[in-house]
Amino acid sequence: MAESAYKEMWEKLNLDIDAHEGLLEVLGKFYGDIYLSQQGRLQGAEYLDFVLSEVHGLRIKELQDAKAQGRKIIGSFCVFVPEELTLAADAVHVGLCSGADAGTEMAETMVPRNTCALIKSFVGFKLAKICPFTESCDVVVGETTCDGKKKAYEAFAEHVNMYIMEVPQQKNACDHDLLRAEMKRYMEELEKLTGKTIGVDDIKKGIAIANGKRKAIQRLNALRKADPAPISGRDALLINQISFYDDPVRFTAKINELCDEIEARIEKGEGVAPKGTPRLLLAGCPMAVPNWKLPYIVEGSGAVVVGEESCIGSRNIRDLVDEDATAKATTVDELLDLLTDRYMKIDCACFTPNDERLDNIADMAEELGAQGVIHYALLFCQPYSHEAFKVDKTLQAKGVPMLAIETDYGMEDVEQLKTRIEAFVETLES
Amino acid sequence: MAESAYKEMWEKLNLDIDAHEGLLEVLGKFYGDIYLSQQGRLQGAEYLDFVLSEVHGLRIKELQDAKAQGRKIIGSFCVFVPEELTLAADAVHVGLCSGADAGTEMAETMVPRNTCALIKSFVGFKLAKICPFTESCDVVVGETTCDGKKKAYEAFAEHVNMYIMEVPQQKNACDHDLLRAEMKRYMEELEKLTGKTIGVDDIKKGIAIANGKRKAIQRLNALRKADPAPISGRDALLINQISFYDDPVRFTAKINELCDEIEARIEKGEGVAPKGTPRLLLAGCPMAVPNWKLPYIVEGSGAVVVGEESCIGSRNIRDLVDEDATAKATTVDELLDLLTDRYMKIDCACFTPNDERLDNIADMAEELGAQGVIHYALLFCQPYSHEAFKVDKTLQAKGVPMLAIETDYGMEDVEQLKTRIEAFVETLES
Repeated sequence: MAESAYKEMWEKLNLDIDAHEGLLEVLGKFYGDIYLSQQGRLQGAEYLDFVLSEVHGLRIKELQDAKAQGRKIIGSFCVFVPEELTLAADAVHVGLCSGADAGTEMAETMVPRNTCALIKSFVGFKLAKICPFTESCDVVVGETTCDGKKKAYEAFAEHVNMYIMEVPQQKNACDHDLLRAEMKRYMEELEKLTGKTIGVDDIKKGIAIANGKRKAIQRLNALRKADPAPISGRDALLINQISFYDDPVRFTAKINELCDEIEARIEKGEGVAPKGTPRLLLAGCPMAVPNWKLPYIVEGSGAVVVGEESCIGSRNIRDLVDEDATAKATTVDELLDLLTDRYMKIDCACFTPNDERLDNIADMAEELGAQGVIHYALLFCQPYSHEAFKVDKTLQAKGVPMLAIETDYGMEDVEQLKTRIEAFVETLES
Repeated sequence: MAESAYKEMWEKLNLDIDAHEGLLEVLGKFYGDIYLSQQGRLQGAEYLDFVLSEVHGLRIKELQDAKAQGRKIIGSFCVFVPEELTLAADAVHVGLCSGADAGTEMAETMVPRNTCALIKSFVGFKLAKICPFTESCDVVVGETTCDGKKKAYEAFAEHVNMYIMEVPQQKNACDHDLLRAEMKRYMEELEKLTGKTIGVDDIKKGIAIANGKRKAIQRLNALRKADPAPISGRDALLINQISFYDDPVRFTAKINELCDEIEARIEKGEGVAPKGTPRLLLAGCPMAVPNWKLPYIVEGSGAVVVGEESCIGSRNIRDLVDEDATAKATTVDELLDLLTDRYMKIDCACFTPNDERLDNIADMAEELGAQGVIHYALLFCQPYSHEAFKVDKTLQAKGVPMLAIETDYGMEDVEQLKTRIEAFVETLES
């Protein structure tokens, strides 16, 4: 990464320059090992390489340029924060750093040691001053999807300008009402922040952009049904990760181009692994950049990852805001209703019960031709650790084997994970 | 305990008789060591001893007798489940077993290992068939106060008839609406279950009984301001614990009698520890029967416990349902509003923010003349572990020292805890 060109910008953002350069160095090496070493990669992956190499550079410069034009930057950690409204306010919606161990000791002065790696990471990145996204934000929108995040945001609020959006825990009428009220409150907060009154056309524009992004990834995921697998799980994960950082219109265009290339590849019967390679679905917790540990191990164990049932994966893109109803809507209230309908469909483990998720995982495994599922829970993530038991039961009933993994961002358990995953893959081959 | 007299009843409840007798034996020994060994105990503690000795015996027989009369038994684990409505339906409201390691290995086949002891305990007690309360219930009412319970109830529902009541996570208007809707839904569920239509007078009766219980414990807590401390923290905790099991009208009468005795004792300047003994407030997670570990250690370390800031403590009794407004109310809807107002005041760590709790702890410490606070979090309890940081900060600002403890129901760390607590108490004396 071209560190020097951006040094002045990073200094203005009050980053710890030395620590940040150390991070970029590790990240660059890690990316080279995991991504650039791949055989038979798509040509369109150049876009991924470019975005990743410039994620703390050019993309941050774009955010600064947007700020200079008076636009606001909204950071979030969760697929429940409605990007449509952020876009309707002509603000920029970005994910924040949370996928690597950073500033852990500092983080543990503010959150308990028994907190999942993702949460410790976002707190640590802030305290260590190495996340230019967090530093660029006018507001960070937190949510109440899990105890760990909900309570960590209280501590985080001592360091950043936080806004908390409540997400309900069941799917009854009163829950729909609550989320609808929270949609409105968020919209009003954006209006206050930007000084812009959000109208029908603004929300329709936001919906069109967000739906466009979702449709591009839906198209990608449908192409992944092909055997041989036309794209590696690593690259597919990276696409999902980048969808939270890059400009959404550019992202959508680039991913559609990549899908064109994949279609041509499928036509020729080509792929990233031989036809018949064991196919696995990953399900569970989100994997934020640069948490590529699990797909890297899986794809080094003789299998290929064909799907990500995760917030940084199918959970974020499965449901569109109803397009026909959006076209017909004539009031902001109607559009907020449609947004609420869409967001209430999310099969997050924060809901009880959350049986849709069980069905969705089973359906994905079948559609993608996955012979097995790896359930991935971050250590101390209670919602997904608990659901792993139910997912296992559901898949067993369908004859689909599942391996449950709990891990963090550390590398101490890599060899142990390899051993377990290789053994799991072997059972699929026999 | 008179096991033999109840054996037939326990068999009918399908308890594992041998395992249950083993439990009672351990419990009896534990109770003897921790409670009966105390010097200068109140005469009224005989009631506590009796209730505890008959908690799986006579009290269960009462539940069976109530069932034989057509009354329903409602079990719960949380102070958010409105006992007023249960009583209005002429049903019996009881807490369930959750304060000891039991059936842990079995529990870990259904919930993750990294789950707090209380949750593993209630699952384990059920799977090991040693909780006659759980086995007596027509319905168990769970709630969504933490990720661990919320998701464990899904597994628990495979074994008991569960009903889930949603508790909101913030205190805005939409949250009040949600809890109000949940109050109504619970009332309707009770009507379905009991076949009884709940009217204004029924709810007023329920409110009177529940408020009566709360006022008795409020009275007790106010008397604990005295120095020398007129009652041990162990006995006060036991009173709070028993409030979840015993008949509420009998409980209220007995605790008021006990308070009369305490008043006489205060008059004479007598207490359970010399005047000037360091006074500590416990704050944090609930301690369910027979989890007496921490107050036992504290009171063996030269201090006396003068308050319990906990669900099995002040959190459950601080707020009354408004009595004047109740007297004036003429509709069920008005009464449900009053109940909602009361329950929305609870300062549970499930809320974000939850600053009332910080103020309440500081106020309690001051009012009770506590020189220090021990914050008690069950290992893997994320809401309270996170809040410990904020409580510490708040108390520091007031010059009140705090010791943060994370532990479980095991005895492995007793010596280590003793060392830490003794050192903490010494700093208070100097």
